[in-house]
Amino acid sequence: MSERLAPGATVGILGGGQLGRMLAMAAAKLGLRARVFAPEADSPAFQVSENPVCAPFEDIAALRQFAGDCGVVTYEFENVPAHSLAVIEELRLVCPPRRALVSAQDRLAERRLLQACQMPHADFEFVAEAGALEPAFAALRGRGHITAYLKKLRQGYDGKGQVHLKDDEDIAAAQDWLGREAAILEAAVPFLFECSVIAARSRHGDIVCYEPARNTHTHGILSESRVPSGLPERLIADAFAMTRAIMERLDYVGVIGVEMFAIGGSEPESLVINEIAPRVHNSGHWTLEACMVSQFENHIRAVAGWPLGSPERHSDARMVNLIGDEVDNWAALLAEAPRRSLHLYGKAETRPGRKMGHYCDLTPLNHPPSAES
Amino acid sequence: MSERLAPGATVGILGGGQLGRMLAMAAAKLGLRARVFAPEADSPAFQVSENPVCAPFEDIAALRQFAGDCGVVTYEFENVPAHSLAVIEELRLVCPPRRALVSAQDRLAERRLLQACQMPHADFEFVAEAGALEPAFAALRGRGHITAYLKKLRQGYDGKGQVHLKDDEDIAAAQDWLGREAAILEAAVPFLFECSVIAARSRHGDIVCYEPARNTHTHGILSESRVPSGLPERLIADAFAMTRAIMERLDYVGVIGVEMFAIGGSEPESLVINEIAPRVHNSGHWTLEACMVSQFENHIRAVAGWPLGSPERHSDARMVNLIGDEVDNWAALLAEAPRRSLHLYGKAETRPGRKMGHYCDLTPLNHPPSAES
Repeated sequence: MSERLAPGATVGILGGGQLGRMLAMAAAKLGLRARVFAPEADSPAFQVSENPVCAPFEDIAALRQFAGDCGVVTYEFENVPAHSLAVIEELRLVCPPRRALVSAQDRLAERRLLQACQMPHADFEFVAEAGALEPAFAALRGRGHITAYLKKLRQGYDGKGQVHLKDDEDIAAAQDWLGREAAILEAAVPFLFECSVIAARSRHGDIVCYEPARNTHTHGILSESRVPSGLPERLIADAFAMTRAIMERLDYVGVIGVEMFAIGGSEPESLVINEIAPRVHNSGHWTLEACMVSQFENHIRAVAGWPLGSPERHSDARMVNLIGDEVDNWAALLAEAPRRSLHLYGKAETRPGRKMGHYCDLTPLNHPPSAES
Repeated sequence: MSERLAPGATVGILGGGQLGRMLAMAAAKLGLRARVFAPEADSPAFQVSENPVCAPFEDIAALRQFAGDCGVVTYEFENVPAHSLAVIEELRLVCPPRRALVSAQDRLAERRLLQACQMPHADFEFVAEAGALEPAFAALRGRGHITAYLKKLRQGYDGKGQVHLKDDEDIAAAQDWLGREAAILEAAVPFLFECSVIAARSRHGDIVCYEPARNTHTHGILSESRVPSGLPERLIADAFAMTRAIMERLDYVGVIGVEMFAIGGSEPESLVINEIAPRVHNSGHWTLEACMVSQFENHIRAVAGWPLGSPERHSDARMVNLIGDEVDNWAALLAEAPRRSLHLYGKAETRPGRKMGHYCDLTPLNHPPSAES
């Protein structure tokens, strides 16, 4: 194991979006230097760090040079090529470990991991090519499922890379969409709501779990996360146990985000894992305001070999994403709520579906829910 | 009045220490770009901002170029030369206004400002040159004061630039120390404790005041700030009223720090103003953890022409500075208190008396005081 980083050492971050930006600021808070490697010249994280490297992830020489300048290297999103991590691993510790990235990059590998950990997950069939779709759908329906999601194995996030199959008439269009790619066909799980656990594991194996947040999506993109989630204590304990088991199996170091569906009748009765993100997560942004040590700081502490901070929260919280031109409303959002914390990501161009910022409102712990809750 | 800055616009910051660093990060949180101008190549604020300018404050061409690249310019400490601000003012709005800087740079001007605002302050005599010291001390003692502080007019901070006169035998040494400089001789105020109000005033004249913190110094340097301060409600109202009056007289924009002495027998009965800092202030660092909108964010909001955020706090707080080699203890400080928030400033060299970082601990509001309190 590499030595613990000393203050003044450099944390390398692959990826320059808002997650990299908030990681860089968390590193700076702790007296560490952040160095960002990203292909886009206008990467938001470049604005808050020194000597960024603007190069493609396929540039082996640039990766090697970057690794040599860093004490440890981490990444802000799961679509960094695994072979880029392999190049860096020859020179420096990479956290979270490459095996976690590989599992997250391939939906089949992710499902295999969940099976190996004996985690509840949606029933699915592997679809090796378009011709295998029809029998796969029939098999799922034979096991009692009504509709299903066809998900390409790679590059899925924010609802991209998947289509919903409701009946046989959808099959032909889905086959065209799939083309020559492989996929999984996953039974649609009728769930009450989505929630997610953000957790951190240190280099020494200590684990802290932030309380699950309850997530709402609009057009497949996270729009809101709030704590408390409404999960009963028993299911919160289940969620933590599942998250811990996954981290331990992967010998994970850093922050992970585990999305789960709450299943049941009128009340949540059990949990099913939806997806694993081997990185800081949008649904954990509330930890910046509601906790003494945020997901970003705990990620940096973990990868630097430092002790983790408490995930305890001092307030209830509601985080709202600003997607696309919703960000144009920033001034009114600030003026209407003086206690509101606003984050804008420094992105030059507003595009539909693009995460431009977020805000967070706090209320005291155990405050009676407001009328809209 | 200049227009409100749009997200993506640049806030120029003169000075590159830890205050500039935390201002730069607050600007980034809000989607503004921070650009730092400082003479020292290893300025901590350079690490968290883009395209810093490393040049002396006397470099007129560099100042002009810098001003042209910024939407508004502010400063992180009061020893920026006033003529440097004047150069920038020809091109861009400067906040806080130069008159506030000038008052803070000269102890006599500061005393005149307090007199003009009819603010309570320590009795004093102007000492134009060393020979005037003896009659000044005699005059103060004639008005019932026992000891006094001789304070040079300029460059005083962290207890520098002052000596304590206890009796006539101290006069000769003080005259040697003063040399050819002017000074004020200020009656020593017997106070219960020092406290400070951090407040922000927007471009539109709105003012928010953070609750006073109670400050403890060691060897003339702030070692600890805590809220609540122990001031009764009546004196908190007085402290806010005095701070508001000073800001209004200066037509101030940005964050100000006003240090006060609490005077009385066993309980605080009144307040005397000690010093005014036209900038974010060390004794306001607790606002980063205990408030939704910190002093740094409110300073940036004010100078950018944005609405101010609430100064309300959600927790009690204790901020402790890490001075000189105290910072070497960082790992134990983190390990012993998982809920602790640690800030290290990225300074390469540890020197005695140098502020290297700080930490903040929170407790729930109105928590019974611990044994050490």
